[in-house]
Amino acid sequence: MERTNYEASNCSIARTLQVLGEKWTLLIIRESFYGATRFEQFHRVLQCPRNLLSERLVLLVEEGILERSQYREPGSRARMEYRLTDKGRELMHIMLAFMQWGDRHKADPEGPPVVARHAACGRELHVTFACSKGHIVTEPDDIDLVPGPGALPPVPA
Amino acid sequence: MERTNYEASNCSIARTLQVLGEKWTLLIIRESFYGATRFEQFHRVLQCPRNLLSERLVLLVEEGILERSQYREPGSRARMEYRLTDKGRELMHIMLAFMQWGDRHKADPEGPPVVARHAACGRELHVTFACSKGHIVTEPDDIDLVPGPGALPPVPA
Repeated sequence: MERTNYEASNCSIARTLQVLGEKWTLLIIRESFYGATRFEQFHRVLQCPRNLLSERLVLLVEEGILERSQYREPGSRARMEYRLTDKGRELMHIMLAFMQWGDRHKADPEGPPVVARHAACGRELHVTFACSKGHIVTEPDDIDLVPGPGALPPVPA
Repeated sequence: MERTNYEASNCSIARTLQVLGEKWTLLIIRESFYGATRFEQFHRVLQCPRNLLSERLVLLVEEGILERSQYREPGSRARMEYRLTDKGRELMHIMLAFMQWGDRHKADPEGPPVVARHAACGRELHVTFACSKGHIVTEPDDIDLVPGPGALPPVPA
């Protein structure tokens, strides 16, 4: 696919990056997958500026990635908690793709700190590609990128 | 896995984000996958500040994601070109995971602008999880995240 012939403005990668293309946002989502739901839980691990964390939580709720609800513990004031929506849980592929590359290229000599397993059989999981005919595809060279139904006309040179 | 009991500093997601956790860097890699090799090819599509593009290309070469070499067209001065290394091509999972989420949630009504296909059979590809026993796993709930060999001891509360 001759990429430079196509307008990049409706690229799905760029549009996803408009929401997620900042380190803290992806780390907040990582913590959601690990079970964090409350502001202080996110803050304790991430140690990022509090106003940045507040802004990103608002953004992720607006984007439908996190769902906000109120909870109240006995004797305490009401607080907000944040849980992944289905749309948010679909970010698992992005998260584990980041983890897999980091495990291969950035891990300590001891090995990766976290391992993803198939709950049913206990074996280690990896991120891969499958086609609709059921073939597993592992080599980038076996992948063709072709214009889809939303492709824009070529940009004049 | 009780995430808040573990030190986050050696997390493979965070370490990958230290290299890639910025929108332009991932867009440069996207263009590499689409075949861009020269500064002006990247710049033409990305339209980002030229000094930012220069800095990121240097970073990606230092990280072993892009490989820099010289080329010279007849009658022109020598120029640099940048190609993905094997380590860089392994970012395909991250790229297509971003694309897949964007295709589902951010595409125009016409559909996605680019489709990934299995070169051998022509069918559409998706990013998925497979375990070492060959099971395809599609639901985040079927994935367990457990401490790996590089897990650090719990942080005192």
